[in-house]
Amino acid sequence: MVSAAGRPVAVVGLGLIGGSLARLLDARGVDVVATDASPATRAAARRAGLTVADDVAACVATADLVVLATPLRAMPAVAAEVAAHAPASATVTDVGSVKGPVRNEVSAAGLGGRYVGAHPMAGTEHSGFDASDVGLLDAVRWAVTVDAAVDPARLEAVLALVTGPCAGTVAVLTDEVHDEAAALVSHVPHVVATQLLNAVAGAPVREVALGLAAGSFRDGTRVAFTDPARTEAMVTQNAAWVAPALRKVVRDLELVIAALESNGSTHAFFRTADDVRAAGRRQTSPGVSTGAVEQVPLVGDWPALLVRRCTTGVVVVGITPTAVEVAPAPAR
Amino acid sequence: MVSAAGRPVAVVGLGLIGGSLARLLDARGVDVVATDASPATRAAARRAGLTVADDVAACVATADLVVLATPLRAMPAVAAEVAAHAPASATVTDVGSVKGPVRNEVSAAGLGGRYVGAHPMAGTEHSGFDASDVGLLDAVRWAVTVDAAVDPARLEAVLALVTGPCAGTVAVLTDEVHDEAAALVSHVPHVVATQLLNAVAGAPVREVALGLAAGSFRDGTRVAFTDPARTEAMVTQNAAWVAPALRKVVRDLELVIAALESNGSTHAFFRTADDVRAAGRRQTSPGVSTGAVEQVPLVGDWPALLVRRCTTGVVVVGITPTAVEVAPAPAR
Repeated sequence: MVSAAGRPVAVVGLGLIGGSLARLLDARGVDVVATDASPATRAAARRAGLTVADDVAACVATADLVVLATPLRAMPAVAAEVAAHAPASATVTDVGSVKGPVRNEVSAAGLGGRYVGAHPMAGTEHSGFDASDVGLLDAVRWAVTVDAAVDPARLEAVLALVTGPCAGTVAVLTDEVHDEAAALVSHVPHVVATQLLNAVAGAPVREVALGLAAGSFRDGTRVAFTDPARTEAMVTQNAAWVAPALRKVVRDLELVIAALESNGSTHAFFRTADDVRAAGRRQTSPGVSTGAVEQVPLVGDWPALLVRRCTTGVVVVGITPTAVEVAPAPAR
Repeated sequence: MVSAAGRPVAVVGLGLIGGSLARLLDARGVDVVATDASPATRAAARRAGLTVADDVAACVATADLVVLATPLRAMPAVAAEVAAHAPASATVTDVGSVKGPVRNEVSAAGLGGRYVGAHPMAGTEHSGFDASDVGLLDAVRWAVTVDAAVDPARLEAVLALVTGPCAGTVAVLTDEVHDEAAALVSHVPHVVATQLLNAVAGAPVREVALGLAAGSFRDGTRVAFTDPARTEAMVTQNAAWVAPALRKVVRDLELVIAALESNGSTHAFFRTADDVRAAGRRQTSPGVSTGAVEQVPLVGDWPALLVRRCTTGVVVVGITPTAVEVAPAPAR
């Protein structure tokens, strides 16, 4: 379907995201070979009906497309294995929540010319193969990232996988735009949620506060209840974008504090985002209205054109032999 | 049931909270007379089957207990009306989200000796009588606040109403402890959610960011999508506690920024609240295990004893002619 005859998709790493992706591709009839560093995880994946190789070398040996779904810290070793054992034709992608640092690692392993970054915008509070689910990555929004040297054929391969069997929609971006946006909508919210929880945990009125906590605290701290080690890794990996975004949080809050302490006006602060409120835009929706679909022909530097279009809010909804289909990203 | 024969509970103000309280008390067989400054709201409340007086004077004329459910800005005028028209025996309470400022207003109207503060820990993103619901305040956690001069009989009356027909559980607190805790679990989370939304609304990568937003952004900004005027009022009314709590947010974030910019450790920050995480304490649950109920006899300065007990995490679950029943506040 996606891969050439007899050329499977290799999924390296069977945690929450890798496991969910392997399950989804398998369910959609894609030839998938997966592996994981843990024998127990490999056994669990076999019991779940997946085709599992015992090591990275066997997993990627005949692959057309390799999906790196390991933690960033494992990337140098895994990328070296892939470079040594995958066919030169195999395209390499990943599912990590930061893109610049992953590109650096795969480039260091000599895979830079074969790499297209990818990040499915979905997850749960849980981790590991046991938490993986065939539905988790079905029809979700993805970010796919490229640099100026991207091989268009490799970008085509990744877009075909994501918009085809994964039924997803895709924003094609530079690593930098992705990582800045991810800091704003994911990493900074994780840091802030952690601080809200920490402040209550350390307060003299802690027991009263926890006893009175209702919806705003539950929602504001939900992600602080997820695995703090994973949150810390995600935040520190994107430190280059998270730190300046947190500086803006500090500056904005200092203005609010000054107003509260001087009976000044907080009106502008509370009304800054009125246009976003009016549009009711709280979360992305992967669905699109097919009426608005446009074709971007696969000619010239179409990857760069796609990046420009996606930065204004359109998403890729499909790909044909001659064009990428784009449509406005709907609000949810 | 709660009030003496022929002595109704008066609910002044029929917004989301006042309307929901009037509906709940009415459904539980309590004699309720309500009013609202808006003729349209009074008509809607009558259509909903409530007994509605045309003005505050008529509403409170024979009341045993008066519940002020108006915005804080209306409190001086309404409190003056209540002082002029309610029987001297009538206890005055309220449902506001800050307690010190309300006590100041009712005291200025000469009602300080008859006042017991109250704050039901429930709400929705909506406001107004049309959004009120008989279930909204059913069996929720309340904070009830007292000062050293509280009349024990008036505290009894409020506890009887809340733990009886409202089926709630109650933390009896000082205004100061309530307002500090409310800053931590409600007002600061509202400010922070607003900043997260503002930062994305004003970012060059705004369209991409909104397109990639998933669960952490949706939850972290949920309350920023509620009525910003109401949020601003709530935050500014509790400025005395919100400002120092925001100063702590700023200090904590500055340490995280410094660590991210210097490759320092963020480990302590992400693990500070591990004990709260381990206990899974994300939101209060109004339920209690009856096995743990203790009696606090209604003798001596029992209100002060109750404040001390509640500050350690127990809640009032009922009241008898001779004792207040307390039990540990359960986690949800």
